[in-house]
Amino acid sequence: MQQVNLGIVGGGTVGSGVYEALQQNGLLMAARLDANLCLVRVAVRDLKKKRAVRIPRELLTNDWREVVYDPNVHLVAELIGGTTVAREVVLAALKLGKPVVTANKALLSTHGEELFAAAKKHGANLYYEASVAGGIPIIKSLREGFVGNRITAIYGIVNGTCNFILSRMKHQGEDFAQVLAEAQRLGYAETPPDLDVDGHDAAHKTGILASLAHGFWVNPKHIHTEGIRHITPVDIEYAGRLGYTIKLLGIVKPLDRGGRLQVSVYPTLIPNTHVLANVDQVFNAVFIRGDIVGDTLFYGTGAGKDATASAVLSDLADAALDIKTGNRLPPFVPHECAGVVAPIEEVVSRYFVRLSVLDKPGTLARITGIFGQSNIGISSVTQPEGQPGPSVPLILMLHNATNGVVLRALAKIAKLPAVTAEPVMYRVENFK
Amino acid sequence: MQQVNLGIVGGGTVGSGVYEALQQNGLLMAARLDANLCLVRVAVRDLKKKRAVRIPRELLTNDWREVVYDPNVHLVAELIGGTTVAREVVLAALKLGKPVVTANKALLSTHGEELFAAAKKHGANLYYEASVAGGIPIIKSLREGFVGNRITAIYGIVNGTCNFILSRMKHQGEDFAQVLAEAQRLGYAETPPDLDVDGHDAAHKTGILASLAHGFWVNPKHIHTEGIRHITPVDIEYAGRLGYTIKLLGIVKPLDRGGRLQVSVYPTLIPNTHVLANVDQVFNAVFIRGDIVGDTLFYGTGAGKDATASAVLSDLADAALDIKTGNRLPPFVPHECAGVVAPIEEVVSRYFVRLSVLDKPGTLARITGIFGQSNIGISSVTQPEGQPGPSVPLILMLHNATNGVVLRALAKIAKLPAVTAEPVMYRVENFK
Repeated sequence: MQQVNLGIVGGGTVGSGVYEALQQNGLLMAARLDANLCLVRVAVRDLKKKRAVRIPRELLTNDWREVVYDPNVHLVAELIGGTTVAREVVLAALKLGKPVVTANKALLSTHGEELFAAAKKHGANLYYEASVAGGIPIIKSLREGFVGNRITAIYGIVNGTCNFILSRMKHQGEDFAQVLAEAQRLGYAETPPDLDVDGHDAAHKTGILASLAHGFWVNPKHIHTEGIRHITPVDIEYAGRLGYTIKLLGIVKPLDRGGRLQVSVYPTLIPNTHVLANVDQVFNAVFIRGDIVGDTLFYGTGAGKDATASAVLSDLADAALDIKTGNRLPPFVPHECAGVVAPIEEVVSRYFVRLSVLDKPGTLARITGIFGQSNIGISSVTQPEGQPGPSVPLILMLHNATNGVVLRALAKIAKLPAVTAEPVMYRVENFK
Repeated sequence: MQQVNLGIVGGGTVGSGVYEALQQNGLLMAARLDANLCLVRVAVRDLKKKRAVRIPRELLTNDWREVVYDPNVHLVAELIGGTTVAREVVLAALKLGKPVVTANKALLSTHGEELFAAAKKHGANLYYEASVAGGIPIIKSLREGFVGNRITAIYGIVNGTCNFILSRMKHQGEDFAQVLAEAQRLGYAETPPDLDVDGHDAAHKTGILASLAHGFWVNPKHIHTEGIRHITPVDIEYAGRLGYTIKLLGIVKPLDRGGRLQVSVYPTLIPNTHVLANVDQVFNAVFIRGDIVGDTLFYGTGAGKDATASAVLSDLADAALDIKTGNRLPPFVPHECAGVVAPIEEVVSRYFVRLSVLDKPGTLARITGIFGQSNIGISSVTQPEGQPGPSVPLILMLHNATNGVVLRALAKIAKLPAVTAEPVMYRVENFK
């Protein structure tokens, strides 16, 4: 049986999880693969730190170079996170022709193009199943399972922290700050929570899925990203009355046949009858539509020690098989070379708009007049009963229109004297 | 770019679907794989038959041997179905060292052991993604995505026909015969429908998943299989009142740590809050629990031309890459060699029991007495109000017990003078 020697860089949550999983199922994997993954070196930040899992002292070092440059290490797992040292680790290993497994979506999103170029140049592979949707084998499914499909839509709930917060806000009626504090207590949200709640983590993952599906490298700067901080219980309630649930959704969808792509992350109204509306708590789900396969959905735990370890083991297995039989597929295959991310202004969707207006004659006419001039169709108007105070809420659902047109119309509406607060707008997705 | 020459045996629905999909996305696949799948020969039953898709005359033959034995053919797709000629085709190709892609679950279920032995002997691979759950990449996910997991449970809705019928019965309140006729009109059920509605097709697929997950070959004769013919609207309604939905479920679950496995297919009561209860129409879904990854779910179209074609293309891609770089994984890797399928009598579950009893004093005491003597706990008893006639229904939910004990108790109950019809029993799954 072939032996493949593994070096791990990172002894934190993910590193410990992988160590533990290998202890638990290493023999089973060897039997399945006819190749034995043998852990020979682990770099940690602090040699003296108490860990939940005891890694034998003789494997440990506090210098990642002692892992990567060890000639006895055939395969490197980068599990430290961040985009600085992690980048050095990955590049150093690839330069030596050593395949690398990473769970680091921030790194791939920011430096993917450079890393994949290095992998290509040095003939070493780079594996990243754990970077998106934790234990769900979404990278493998997209790359290999749907290799015969043109991917016509991806909708992903890919940030467990945001999904936990939005689920709680919906089911308990609590507000964002309350639930965030609770999520931080439970360990579901970090302090500060910005990477998650401002949508950046979801954007990293959405960008990786978009790049893989469409075969051109999506620059994360081109991904229109909105987080969930501004979502209020009131909006969740009004959306609910109309039959919708608000989810932070990563969306990848061709705008037209010219290679222009919507790649975005924003809170989205999803019809309650759609399966994604019912993905709750910290779970992740990715909905993929292929031109041959039709609609599919993948659901599972999106983060955490064990789900991530499962994905890392899958990559380690692929790497071991590649070492055994030769590289099967490069980490990134360009194929839609004319692809480009369209600016959000050109993206078409439906909209939910909540206005605060003075309850006086002519207001609705003025507002609908502005939408009419902009050629934006209104599919429903609701003025909920019995609100005290001078301002009343007005909920409008708009038909398909480009974001640019709608944003300009809303800017005009915001300036009307009868409109007493900044208009609130969410996009609506009907999965057509 | 490497060229891999493909021969297809079968020009029916699946064969035409694969031909069409290759026409549509062949270039895209070649770009992704850096290998070109070139279709060089197609065997069909009738050269003169009008097809929805026009396959060029010069590719066609009506003799499968002209495909398999053509030295120009590197890779064979067996898409004729059935277990006789299909077996000959697969064995002949493997003997020539040619890799084979098949969508044929009946063939694999019946002759899998022989075919995988032939594949091993001749160093040719056999691919079968399309055999289970259509376009859902479930074989790849189990084999590769979850390679680092011990699979602790599989629950699959893997027969679209049965799921369509049960969904309609639930939502429209129609009876089995009515909905079956409708399904046959819509092309969702065949005539005769036995393979589907008696659970055999689901058993084939469940057996393949079990074999793959547990690494020993599951003999289809050992799979306890019940179909859906006997399910009545009354049972669906009573189950619904208790918060359950009836689905035909393939179940694969270790009974204990000794390698004994439950592998079964039967109509199962699923709590309405569970995601599988809401998989409706012809959709398939497979729920997989791994000891590392936790709970995951895969959802999509389970059958039909396009979903199957998507899975066949994925296998063709894997085969092409294996031809390019060498075989990566054998089609079946034994690893739990002490595994054995436990008889249904030893399987533990919860139960829903519906009895028809004479409405007279002492009846309930006699029935619950028999359960008590058998050490079977009762979790609820319902006697729905207002039923006319001498007999009244009595619904019991039972706690965990082995099937053997429950079946023996029900046989005793059936003999009570106050029990006026054969007891109706369904197993209940709580996914614990």
